[in-house]
Amino acid sequence: MTYDIVINNVDVLGLDNAQSYNIGITGNLIQYIGSDAITGTDTIDGSNHLAAPGMVNAHTHIAMTLLRNYADDMVLMDWLQNKIWPAEANLTPEHVYWGTMLGIAEMIKSGTTAFADMYFEMATTAEVVAETGIRASLSRGLTGLDQAGDNRLAENIAFYKEWHNKADGRIQVRLGPHAPYTCPVDYLKKVITAAKELGCGLHMHLSETKGEVDACIKEHGMTPIALMDSLGMFELPTLAAHCVYVTDADMDIMAAKHVAVASNPQSNLKLASGIAPLSAMLNKNITVALGTDGASSNNNLDMLEELRLASVLAKTVTGDPTVIPANIAVELATSNGANALGFDNVGELKVGQKADIVLYDMHKPYWYPRHNLTSGFVYAANANDVDTVLVDGKILLAQGKLTTIDEEKTYAEANRLGLDLVNKA
Amino acid sequence: MTYDIVINNVDVLGLDNAQSYNIGITGNLIQYIGSDAITGTDTIDGSNHLAAPGMVNAHTHIAMTLLRNYADDMVLMDWLQNKIWPAEANLTPEHVYWGTMLGIAEMIKSGTTAFADMYFEMATTAEVVAETGIRASLSRGLTGLDQAGDNRLAENIAFYKEWHNKADGRIQVRLGPHAPYTCPVDYLKKVITAAKELGCGLHMHLSETKGEVDACIKEHGMTPIALMDSLGMFELPTLAAHCVYVTDADMDIMAAKHVAVASNPQSNLKLASGIAPLSAMLNKNITVALGTDGASSNNNLDMLEELRLASVLAKTVTGDPTVIPANIAVELATSNGANALGFDNVGELKVGQKADIVLYDMHKPYWYPRHNLTSGFVYAANANDVDTVLVDGKILLAQGKLTTIDEEKTYAEANRLGLDLVNKA
Repeated sequence: MTYDIVINNVDVLGLDNAQSYNIGITGNLIQYIGSDAITGTDTIDGSNHLAAPGMVNAHTHIAMTLLRNYADDMVLMDWLQNKIWPAEANLTPEHVYWGTMLGIAEMIKSGTTAFADMYFEMATTAEVVAETGIRASLSRGLTGLDQAGDNRLAENIAFYKEWHNKADGRIQVRLGPHAPYTCPVDYLKKVITAAKELGCGLHMHLSETKGEVDACIKEHGMTPIALMDSLGMFELPTLAAHCVYVTDADMDIMAAKHVAVASNPQSNLKLASGIAPLSAMLNKNITVALGTDGASSNNNLDMLEELRLASVLAKTVTGDPTVIPANIAVELATSNGANALGFDNVGELKVGQKADIVLYDMHKPYWYPRHNLTSGFVYAANANDVDTVLVDGKILLAQGKLTTIDEEKTYAEANRLGLDLVNKA
Repeated sequence: MTYDIVINNVDVLGLDNAQSYNIGITGNLIQYIGSDAITGTDTIDGSNHLAAPGMVNAHTHIAMTLLRNYADDMVLMDWLQNKIWPAEANLTPEHVYWGTMLGIAEMIKSGTTAFADMYFEMATTAEVVAETGIRASLSRGLTGLDQAGDNRLAENIAFYKEWHNKADGRIQVRLGPHAPYTCPVDYLKKVITAAKELGCGLHMHLSETKGEVDACIKEHGMTPIALMDSLGMFELPTLAAHCVYVTDADMDIMAAKHVAVASNPQSNLKLASGIAPLSAMLNKNITVALGTDGASSNNNLDMLEELRLASVLAKTVTGDPTVIPANIAVELATSNGANALGFDNVGELKVGQKADIVLYDMHKPYWYPRHNLTSGFVYAANANDVDTVLVDGKILLAQGKLTTIDEEKTYAEANRLGLDLVNKA
């Protein structure tokens, strides 16, 4: 039999690296991994490369790439009120189109094959996802502090009906209540009711800062996690971004209700929010995934940085260098991410899974000697080692070249529109 | 006039990026930076590149590249006693030669132009430094717990006499007392006396872990910093690696005695040692530099990771996102490093400085839009963006190709010798 695509002679993350493997892909599925000689319509030479499951960026605001490196080293509210919000006030679908294109180019080139987004103009984002071939869980950011809140909810519902499960199932849609401090309880009830009617999941910022948690307790007598639980949110699949400040009781709720966490270690450090207790969450069997957050608070979409940080921060926070070892760090960035976003058969490199595969070029100084490739991947590798990416069985990056994105035009348009946003602010 | 080397049309880190610049280099010095058209014997096209001063890795054990990715996620003493020391017991000059070559290849390719090393077989290390063209401050690791301690000191003294200020001044030598827990007071006194006779500096691990500090206080009634001060060490230029656990009084001593710190954020996190109080040190005007530590506890020699971590960790530790802003993070990794190692006219990109220059290719997704190049360098750039490196006016990396190192042979030999060390252990 002939496979659609065969990757020959490749090392595979997590398998015995005393030997190399041949991988056969037909349609959108991994059909074979082993040492038999196999033939494919397309053949990729995998020698001196490591094949790994594509990474899942479980929390970002993709079009914020346009505001990357624009305003840094600032206090959160000063940054938002005087820099980010004035710039975002002029966002058009054209900005979101090219900002999303830039972000997807960056993600593919750094080994990310799926992402969870919460932003504006999501139909535009969905078009770019459909066009570029990446996988995404999308939600419209919902704030309910003004009269336009109901319109935003209606927009998210219409977006769900138009885009959920589209693009060969690569796009899923959730409702995106922004945060406890931007969604009053009455508004949250409407959002949760709508989600129940649609049968869809939710994506929300929860317990990102100490200030947010303190204010929530003061106003509602409950932590953000307990408040959302009391409103019935967790009867639906919920992706909770950040969770830096969670109590033991919060974590018990999260474990019992299968709330998935999207932790953003670098953004949390940079904004001085803190360090999420990932090791404690994992001990309670909570699904912990990783994200970059928006590129204006990171300032890149490099998931290798996040998984490395997640692992080494947990060691220092617990005082135990054995926690979140390399193989678990890989799971956070891959299979846990896919589970958190609700994609089936995604996140592992094995037969029967969707072919979301990344090849890392190991012909670099920091990949030698070849003692342990999982350690190398987590503690030494560089996102620019990525040279081949498949999503859903299609090649999106071939020897470093994007196949579905006009890279030159994307850089030029994103640069023009990013400077335009700032000049108008 | 014709310069030896001209870099045309390049953005310069820290200068106004509304315009680009031409840089003229003759001999080992930067002779011109400006907008005049200048001519050179060699010309480098700097368009769409950022020129930055080479980074200084202020603390590493370079030949430990051979043990990279060999033993991770372990408790410190288990790791040392059962993995690292048994492997190191079989080190020969051949191992050190190729381990050093691999490390220098990695450093040059990631934008590091000078480093401070403490290890064994340092004459071999010095040969590789001389041969490859990088800049280094070298010290023989001195432990005094056994009878061979005096021989090690004699070896370090002979090494100083043979190599200090050699290779056009690119090599400097210090004495390398390893740590308070491996150097009894009587031994330290001999080391300090020898340093005074030679008029040379010292490089020592100090206050790396809470356990080390507690044990020192228990034995000597003083912190490691206070103990070294009481022995007169700080009358000599001292590079203190780590300083994770330092008191306010320690910092006052360090400031008064001009002790320079080589902080290793990633190694400290990975080994669960803790987070050094860099912002507090900077507030006391202590010279804070950055290092990677050895590649067996990091696991790469990527200085961009370290300066990014130094900045974002300081923000969360202090709760203030304005501390260690991007321009200061750059100084930690460049000019502060050069000062800490005692190299004159190194660490800044300006006329009169040694030409240790790195060009970063900005034609990558995460360098767009071009809002602020200093923010981009610190928070978004990738070490693999480096494609041109000059040290002391000589081109060591040209369009990604090493000019003084046989890359293929280095990978092959380092791989063979790394596996050899582990197999013999």
